[in-house]
Amino acid sequence: MSGCPHGSSGSGYPYGAPPPAQPYYGAPTSYGGPPAYWSPFAALVPSAFPPGTDPNVVACFQMADQDRSGFIDDFELQRALSSYNQSFSLRTVRLLMYLFTSSNVRKIGPKEFNSLFYSLQNWRNIFERFDRDRSGKIDAAELREALLSLGYSVSPVVLDLLVSKFDKYGGNNRAIEYDNFIECCLTVKGLTEKFKEKDTMYTGSATFTYESFMLTVLPFLIA
Amino acid sequence: MSGCPHGSSGSGYPYGAPPPAQPYYGAPTSYGGPPAYWSPFAALVPSAFPPGTDPNVVACFQMADQDRSGFIDDFELQRALSSYNQSFSLRTVRLLMYLFTSSNVRKIGPKEFNSLFYSLQNWRNIFERFDRDRSGKIDAAELREALLSLGYSVSPVVLDLLVSKFDKYGGNNRAIEYDNFIECCLTVKGLTEKFKEKDTMYTGSATFTYESFMLTVLPFLIA
Repeated sequence: MSGCPHGSSGSGYPYGAPPPAQPYYGAPTSYGGPPAYWSPFAALVPSAFPPGTDPNVVACFQMADQDRSGFIDDFELQRALSSYNQSFSLRTVRLLMYLFTSSNVRKIGPKEFNSLFYSLQNWRNIFERFDRDRSGKIDAAELREALLSLGYSVSPVVLDLLVSKFDKYGGNNRAIEYDNFIECCLTVKGLTEKFKEKDTMYTGSATFTYESFMLTVLPFLIA
Repeated sequence: MSGCPHGSSGSGYPYGAPPPAQPYYGAPTSYGGPPAYWSPFAALVPSAFPPGTDPNVVACFQMADQDRSGFIDDFELQRALSSYNQSFSLRTVRLLMYLFTSSNVRKIGPKEFNSLFYSLQNWRNIFERFDRDRSGKIDAAELREALLSLGYSVSPVVLDLLVSKFDKYGGNNRAIEYDNFIECCLTVKGLTEKFKEKDTMYTGSATFTYESFMLTVLPFLIA
């Protein structure tokens, strides 16, 4: 796998270096063809090749930073993550930015982008591992396994609530698409981390003041 | 004020009884004209007049219950609440249903509708009291006063977060429109009540297990 998290690979490798040896879950696409389904940055075309370590990350950052401000804002990130058959809502993007910067600044710099890059890569790999028929959706049991593989164990009741919240179509055949899966992962990861910050003794319980409760929860609501 | 929460009044009073003496914040409209801006049920036309106490509520319920199921589902409620210049997102509607039924059943019966009716009436009155120039928006200071008049005192930090979350347009002149005001009220009311359930001794602090924390917070997320 190479390029932007799950970006172009194989003959079209745009950075002048061979792709690093990494687990590979997606089909390669020829560069210049339609963006690969599994690439969060497929909408981007590289404009420069930066030297140095981790060139994929640097290149993706520079591609996303369209105004060359040195930061990526919410609209730039949304554009970078969306491709022809995969869109990210501004809500998902802002939740990503909040959780990778721990602020409401809505700008991410190179350091945060690095973490974001590998998390997206990881989530995409996990999603594809469970979306075996390439339908672009995973069901409740698969979501449970996917969250487990990320280190989050949720009860059946919480799982049911997650599926009801992140299944955008409703109906009987509940399933979660990739963008909602990302939002679901972000939500579980973010809420669990916030809870753990208050549960420093690992008792399984956490105490909040009203103020800290509101400030913990509100950022996860509508962005 | 009479009719569906802030619905038609004056000469067009459709229920054969004079409107009850209540504080009045909106301009009357003639019945049959365009729906009043301030009516959450203005999209509805009454089809029958039920006898008995509280006829406004019963009539509105019957109007909203288009399939005569005896319950109002999320789509029926959305339709009943939306009018030509005021739309309610399905998210807001589902948050309303969740908080007035304390479940994810997404159906409300007469009893819950009664509470919903008076809460909407109350919130509309408060919104109009603070939207003095009839712009359809209130600013941060007015939101703070509006929440105070509902009995919720929030800190400047929480207020700032609420405005940043519920201002749908962003930008420098932050302001909240009616539907987002309702969602903001629902969120503050709901989270505060959930917190108080855990703070039975009124200490200002509440302890959650991880499970109860997740089950408390998740229903407030994207519906």
